[in-house]
Amino acid sequence: MAKAPVLTPRADDFPRWYQDLITKAELADNGPVRGTMVIRPYGYGLWERMQHDMDVRIKETGTQNAYFPLLIPQSYLTREAEHVEGFTPELAVVTHGGGKELEEPVVIRPTSETIVNEYFSKWVQSYRDLPLLINQWANVVRWELRPRLFLRTSEFLWQEGHTAHATYEEARDFAARIHRHVYGSFLRDLLAMDFVLGRKTAGERFAGAINTLTLEGMMGDGKALQLGTSHELGQNFAEAFGTRYLSRDGEQELVWQTSWGSTTRMIGALVMMHGDDNGLRLPPRLAPVQAVVLAVKDDEAVLAKAREIGERLTAAGVRVQVDDRTETPFGRRAVDWELKGVPVRVEIGPRDLENGTAMLVRRIAGGKQPVALDALTALLPAVLEEDQELLLTQARARRESRTSDVADVGEAVEAAVAGGWARLPWAVLGAAGEARLAEHGVTVRCLVAEDGAVPDADDAPGNVAVVARAY
Amino acid sequence: MAKAPVLTPRADDFPRWYQDLITKAELADNGPVRGTMVIRPYGYGLWERMQHDMDVRIKETGTQNAYFPLLIPQSYLTREAEHVEGFTPELAVVTHGGGKELEEPVVIRPTSETIVNEYFSKWVQSYRDLPLLINQWANVVRWELRPRLFLRTSEFLWQEGHTAHATYEEARDFAARIHRHVYGSFLRDLLAMDFVLGRKTAGERFAGAINTLTLEGMMGDGKALQLGTSHELGQNFAEAFGTRYLSRDGEQELVWQTSWGSTTRMIGALVMMHGDDNGLRLPPRLAPVQAVVLAVKDDEAVLAKAREIGERLTAAGVRVQVDDRTETPFGRRAVDWELKGVPVRVEIGPRDLENGTAMLVRRIAGGKQPVALDALTALLPAVLEEDQELLLTQARARRESRTSDVADVGEAVEAAVAGGWARLPWAVLGAAGEARLAEHGVTVRCLVAEDGAVPDADDAPGNVAVVARAY
Repeated sequence: MAKAPVLTPRADDFPRWYQDLITKAELADNGPVRGTMVIRPYGYGLWERMQHDMDVRIKETGTQNAYFPLLIPQSYLTREAEHVEGFTPELAVVTHGGGKELEEPVVIRPTSETIVNEYFSKWVQSYRDLPLLINQWANVVRWELRPRLFLRTSEFLWQEGHTAHATYEEARDFAARIHRHVYGSFLRDLLAMDFVLGRKTAGERFAGAINTLTLEGMMGDGKALQLGTSHELGQNFAEAFGTRYLSRDGEQELVWQTSWGSTTRMIGALVMMHGDDNGLRLPPRLAPVQAVVLAVKDDEAVLAKAREIGERLTAAGVRVQVDDRTETPFGRRAVDWELKGVPVRVEIGPRDLENGTAMLVRRIAGGKQPVALDALTALLPAVLEEDQELLLTQARARRESRTSDVADVGEAVEAAVAGGWARLPWAVLGAAGEARLAEHGVTVRCLVAEDGAVPDADDAPGNVAVVARAY
Repeated sequence: MAKAPVLTPRADDFPRWYQDLITKAELADNGPVRGTMVIRPYGYGLWERMQHDMDVRIKETGTQNAYFPLLIPQSYLTREAEHVEGFTPELAVVTHGGGKELEEPVVIRPTSETIVNEYFSKWVQSYRDLPLLINQWANVVRWELRPRLFLRTSEFLWQEGHTAHATYEEARDFAARIHRHVYGSFLRDLLAMDFVLGRKTAGERFAGAINTLTLEGMMGDGKALQLGTSHELGQNFAEAFGTRYLSRDGEQELVWQTSWGSTTRMIGALVMMHGDDNGLRLPPRLAPVQAVVLAVKDDEAVLAKAREIGERLTAAGVRVQVDDRTETPFGRRAVDWELKGVPVRVEIGPRDLENGTAMLVRRIAGGKQPVALDALTALLPAVLEEDQELLLTQARARRESRTSDVADVGEAVEAAVAGGWARLPWAVLGAAGEARLAEHGVTVRCLVAEDGAVPDADDAPGNVAVVARAY
């Protein structure tokens, strides 16, 4: 008789598999207020490691961290016309504070462009103050009617960058630099994620932007997920808030701006891009625990050896946890580590000890093989790097195999509904075609140039639309 | 003619001096919603360094980080009677979300004991799940009628720890451990802060606690500031939320809990404990920039030497910034670094270069002296450690010189109003005396045992009340 699976198989019900995994791997729980979430220590540990790595990359661009208030006067949002239209339906409004009704209601930030500009307009006086490069790590609230843990939550954690520059070109180049060299490198090098880097169509842009760059990843079910965005804001917010500087020529000029964000949604992406029917599969460079050393049995020699191996691997720079909870059945512990996606298990029992070996179980490459105890320390770092590569290769192979070139809107819808991505010329699709896609719950994820580069304009000749269903 | 001071002198108007310093050193600005604040990069850099250091200390206790939602159903707060009474006047209430009026209003967390217990009651099943040690870094909102930057803000950043234990003793010991070995060591070793560690009276306890430990520091004007608190919650929240565990004996038992927090208020404390009439004085271990190398003049040889010194000091492990902005007058830059509290300035001009020396200017010990360029690298780390010590010594000396032993309530009020701390037997003061103090805006900051230890009970024989005006 086959064992009952720990998770609903992906092929049976992908959303259910996702929810099962999040719960059973103890990544997060639903919060009491609809759409909010409790990020549990194992899930938060992933976020901490993401934060740390991305924070270093952000600072390398010369950007400094700061903190702007959670609460924004409602009137600020109305100053930029597209912005207020885009965000009003999602706002959480505070009407009472300190036991009294407020004179002007305040909103919880859905994003901070407006309040940031209120201060940029004070801090920026002359060209010497530019570029002004600020980032904040914060929570934001966007009321969510169909919430899903990590992917769409009413409150999420993120970083939001806000910059002001003297020229259009500088702002454009900075947004592109963040996109490719902060987000792109981060997702690929740390999270082993595959993505397409492109430009949003006018209909899909951030509310108030003149251009939005996006990174789109393919999930295990073939749907797309936006992994991060970087916006050129032009002078829209500068105009609304009077963010001006005295140029070298002695003229008062509006600044050019960017904003860019990445969120706890990336944890959801990690699950859906790399997870399998047995649970999470963590990229070794991200994994808080890269290798777990499991004592199979409550045996003194085994426990001592497990701890010794743990120490030797730690000394070799591997992040190790020794699992000596032998009161819990071995099988249950092994399944749990598999669920949690720890890249490598080193299992050691009395028989292994006799043979001078341990069983090496690889979560990503799969398979198990006995390895001489003396060889472990030298072997593991290489195995972890190999598995890091393999995750990326697998994700890329899936996207490539499930992406097809199509000739018209009908075929694009068909491909997307079947769980894949379609590519077709933007000149064929256009805004009218985009509206037809929408009737089937299909969207243009991004536009890319013929050679795969990011186009300078929606209507640049040869632009290809990447079309899919999306989270 | 004397130069106009950069800041209002402390002796003239201490609150004004504080506000001037915060603004001119670019630590923070007032936010648009009353009581909120914008933490600017220089101020946030201090917070980041504090966070990092404290996070390491917290994790060393076995505590893990997690994240609970910002929004809490109003009904949660009402479950613990003292808690709701304590926090209701300070709540920010969200009544509308996603364009609709909410069925049940939700509040922005003023602190998270209630929502944490909602989840602890699910996560804790058996004695094997204990102790459960959780911390979160988050923002909280407590509506503030008389706000002051960093000290009392409607939104502030903090860490809040929440733990559950099997026994009263374990919880008590854990709260004490956090207090002494996390907060106490942090404040003393990193921030060079002097404090008295004691126990709050029943009247000053956290709403819902059975005991509150506090660290009280004396500010530059002799007033007290609470620097961090650690609470024994007993079983109050466990009872309200049904947080029970199956004991080894097979009984369902309520857990014993602690909570503990420290906030961005510590930045205000840093300013008021160490600042002088010229600005901030940063403890070298905390300072994001420990030494600034100032090129006095726009001279190629000077600039080259300044950069070379910068590189050598960096290589020696000093956090250095080279100030080569020679288009700004030297005097203005020097005043600005003084304002920002950078511990050491290394000034180099053409004449210094001729002499093979640089001028070493010490912000904390004071004074300036020429130092041979070759000697700088060896000298600076020792100077920084000496200055770290000196800040602590100065703070302690001030508290000791401005604390007096008094015999009755009248004398205690007199000492506090004159800008000092008074010590008198709790047996003499008592709750009735506490009420009389309150008429003069004076409070019992904490109770300490005769030998300086933390008392086990308010009424332990020999308890001394430390009495002061406070922020």
